[in-house]
Amino acid sequence: MTSLQSYACGQWTAGSGDPVALHDPSTAEVIGDVRPAGVDFAATLAHARNVGGPALRAMTFAQRGEILKGLSKVLHEHRDELIGVAGRNGGNTRGDAKFDLDGASGTLAFYAHLSKSLPETPWITDGEGTQLGRTARFWAEHVLLPRPGVALHINAFNFPAWGMGEKLACSILAGVPVITKAGTASAMLAWRVSELIVASGLLPEGSFQFIPGSISAMTDHLESMDVVAFTGSARTGIRIRGNANCIAKSVRVNIEADSINSAVLGPDCDFDDDSFTQFISNLHIDMTQKAGQKCTAVRRILVPHDKLDEVKEALVDRLKSTRIGNALDPDVRMGPVASAAQLEDVRGGIQKLQAECDTILGGPEAMDGPGYFVTPTLLQARNNDAQLLHELEVFGPCATILPYDGKAETAADLINRGGGCLVASAYSDDKKWISEVVAGIAPWHGRVWVGSEKTMGHALGPGAVLPGAIHGGPGRAGGGEELGGLRGLQPYLQRTAIQGDRSVVGRSFGSPE
Amino acid sequence: MTSLQSYACGQWTAGSGDPVALHDPSTAEVIGDVRPAGVDFAATLAHARNVGGPALRAMTFAQRGEILKGLSKVLHEHRDELIGVAGRNGGNTRGDAKFDLDGASGTLAFYAHLSKSLPETPWITDGEGTQLGRTARFWAEHVLLPRPGVALHINAFNFPAWGMGEKLACSILAGVPVITKAGTASAMLAWRVSELIVASGLLPEGSFQFIPGSISAMTDHLESMDVVAFTGSARTGIRIRGNANCIAKSVRVNIEADSINSAVLGPDCDFDDDSFTQFISNLHIDMTQKAGQKCTAVRRILVPHDKLDEVKEALVDRLKSTRIGNALDPDVRMGPVASAAQLEDVRGGIQKLQAECDTILGGPEAMDGPGYFVTPTLLQARNNDAQLLHELEVFGPCATILPYDGKAETAADLINRGGGCLVASAYSDDKKWISEVVAGIAPWHGRVWVGSEKTMGHALGPGAVLPGAIHGGPGRAGGGEELGGLRGLQPYLQRTAIQGDRSVVGRSFGSPE
Repeated sequence: MTSLQSYACGQWTAGSGDPVALHDPSTAEVIGDVRPAGVDFAATLAHARNVGGPALRAMTFAQRGEILKGLSKVLHEHRDELIGVAGRNGGNTRGDAKFDLDGASGTLAFYAHLSKSLPETPWITDGEGTQLGRTARFWAEHVLLPRPGVALHINAFNFPAWGMGEKLACSILAGVPVITKAGTASAMLAWRVSELIVASGLLPEGSFQFIPGSISAMTDHLESMDVVAFTGSARTGIRIRGNANCIAKSVRVNIEADSINSAVLGPDCDFDDDSFTQFISNLHIDMTQKAGQKCTAVRRILVPHDKLDEVKEALVDRLKSTRIGNALDPDVRMGPVASAAQLEDVRGGIQKLQAECDTILGGPEAMDGPGYFVTPTLLQARNNDAQLLHELEVFGPCATILPYDGKAETAADLINRGGGCLVASAYSDDKKWISEVVAGIAPWHGRVWVGSEKTMGHALGPGAVLPGAIHGGPGRAGGGEELGGLRGLQPYLQRTAIQGDRSVVGRSFGSPE
Repeated sequence: MTSLQSYACGQWTAGSGDPVALHDPSTAEVIGDVRPAGVDFAATLAHARNVGGPALRAMTFAQRGEILKGLSKVLHEHRDELIGVAGRNGGNTRGDAKFDLDGASGTLAFYAHLSKSLPETPWITDGEGTQLGRTARFWAEHVLLPRPGVALHINAFNFPAWGMGEKLACSILAGVPVITKAGTASAMLAWRVSELIVASGLLPEGSFQFIPGSISAMTDHLESMDVVAFTGSARTGIRIRGNANCIAKSVRVNIEADSINSAVLGPDCDFDDDSFTQFISNLHIDMTQKAGQKCTAVRRILVPHDKLDEVKEALVDRLKSTRIGNALDPDVRMGPVASAAQLEDVRGGIQKLQAECDTILGGPEAMDGPGYFVTPTLLQARNNDAQLLHELEVFGPCATILPYDGKAETAADLINRGGGCLVASAYSDDKKWISEVVAGIAPWHGRVWVGSEKTMGHALGPGAVLPGAIHGGPGRAGGGEELGGLRGLQPYLQRTAIQGDRSVVGRSFGSPE
């Protein structure tokens, strides 16, 4: 049995205190533990700030990009081993594990590539220079410089590799050292990835540290140049943003919280249209991939009244034919949820939704066997105005159909009741309808995904987070922003206006002409 | 005697409750009052969201820019009258009042001009489109759309016109309705400006509302699409950011707080150099303009040991020859501080600093007469390591000299002890020294101002906030960002990635080719 270690202050350290058991969610067997105490938080932060930060900042963006390229390769080389770990401690099917791992190595490679477009200076010039006075002499340039602090990355249990990798890529490329905290339930994969990262020797000492246990007390030690990037529940996000020390020191806090994402079928989509096919296929992926444990997964499905029967039939068919079982079985397409606590949450959530919905498929009943399995559950709202539909996220293989009149305005109103979401998807080949929906919902979302006949076979579904587009969302979704190419570096950079004579400021800090 | 009214829900409304007296700070005479109660906050917010927001969003950026142009003209046309109000209720000399008023009309005109570069669509396309898949079909554009909420602008007492105008310009151009709260002590100018704005009929109903009294309970009514922009003390900023409702709803909070700004003289600058001359001149402006009540004013003055005597002599000469008195007297160059409370704070602050400093000029003693006058006070640190020097802002005509060894590294270390500032200025014609200082301090500042022989006669000093460069700073300065051209609109816009087929997404949301 494995007891996970922390990598802090340049060494692997065993934890202490009462162990938290790690399970194989497919069997409920205990396969390891995390002992939460034993890391000196102040020393870990100081090590990052005093050793890791200066080492990273001494490199160019391109040099840091080379590190990311190397890390991407390391992950890819150990892919098969890591898929096994994800199956054992995460309940991930082979497909689920690949989605997580390839997401991590792909995002690292993306930012490695992006680094080639960045300058050789220690800063990035932001936009064009500006004349400030009546003469061209008095000039301003804006520069983006790495913050001389530390990035505390608090990851969720559902994407142990990708979540760590995407935050790491942006922070390291920006030049800010990382302390990464794994979601404890599935920490074994993050721990093994961290072992590989440390063993590779690619990252300078102090620029990467790893903690699998609780770090809630660490926020009290953060300083003004530090950054917290958190992915997880809205509730925990609120606690972090409300931390008195972070508020007093203006610590940057970037939150990506769960949200009640939606998908809407346009009234023009008929059963044999490519748009309809993608709608069903993407819903099926979102409900079953990672057993529905994706922050981007669709929870509310808007269907025009006259398409209801067709959608239900098609979706139920797909869900029923999904083979559920032990994640390590290569024929299985949907594994368990990640932990006993998640199982309880999901079952409780389904029961709450059932008070407002009819059950089309599934339900909260326990499945046979000791593992943390939930059956795919499709509900239909009895009344779209019930606030619970728009507020309660069941973080598992569960979604609710909301019948609607097919009007863009109605769709936008219902979708926006989610109070701010990571993503919404709309399927239609009617450009007017699509434009109205997109314009109506865009300010409430970090990302809007448009399905049409032309995306068929070309587009990854709305549940996939790609490094070229931003990830995050307003309101309920936490108000944060990650990825999106160069935009993803901004939380780790300080923007500063440099003013003075153009011959001094423009030549030193402006873009090369 | 005038009792200021609020403009809310489409009408001017008298306040109720116990009056807060407004004074002429030059004479301590009561000239008006603000009655804090009587505004229905929920109704005021709803009026902005439901009436003002849709009206603004129905316009193009250029149409909103035209409004700003009109408002700029209105202010300019009433300049003389407004200078009088600023003198009576703000203790502003004619020069102080012009600085505030021309700052307001200039910033409105700047954003009016900027609007011409913006598209005719309801959104701004953010950067280039991006290919997301293996084929060029799967595509993303990023768009910036006005948030369908309300902007609550909480202004400081020191810049009643400019503070209101710069926030208003960015918010209105972005398409977000404004509720503006004046700093109460000097609210008469903001009230009169608001009367002119309302009477002009330029802004659509609901897009501008004005409250001179307390609005602290309003933050409890804010929603996820709303934005708070606050300028004022670090302490109040912390309270706003810590508001439980704002945290829970991910309300955007942009804070521009006071900070312990510095100026550093390079070791190469001799007494008759232009750089030296500007150093002294800008220090004199910062200490006496608005009686030192500028959030950007220099509080810490770093001087190489061997220049100490020359700097002190030159600065003391300038300060001594500054005529202090009733702000309405046209020969007066420095007026009183804004209120009795400010007078008490400033005198108390000087006394605290004196525990760590020698007094070169001035001190906390009361000046003759009933007004709120403080004598210009120049101190010299006995020990640069005293944390108080880097923490305590005396918001009045007071600054402290810190002697140092002339090394860039020493200067950067001392400057950064401010824990995050709005601005720092460095004076030198030694490019290597300047580069080292700038690179060392930039991440801790929102703005760095470089003085050299070539800026002589061409540059406004570091205390002036210009719309082309960002204003704000990390850490102690609140972590916010305003102005900086188009950057200033970002707090009011939601960035959203739109993904889908390139022919749909690129054509609808991409930049015109």
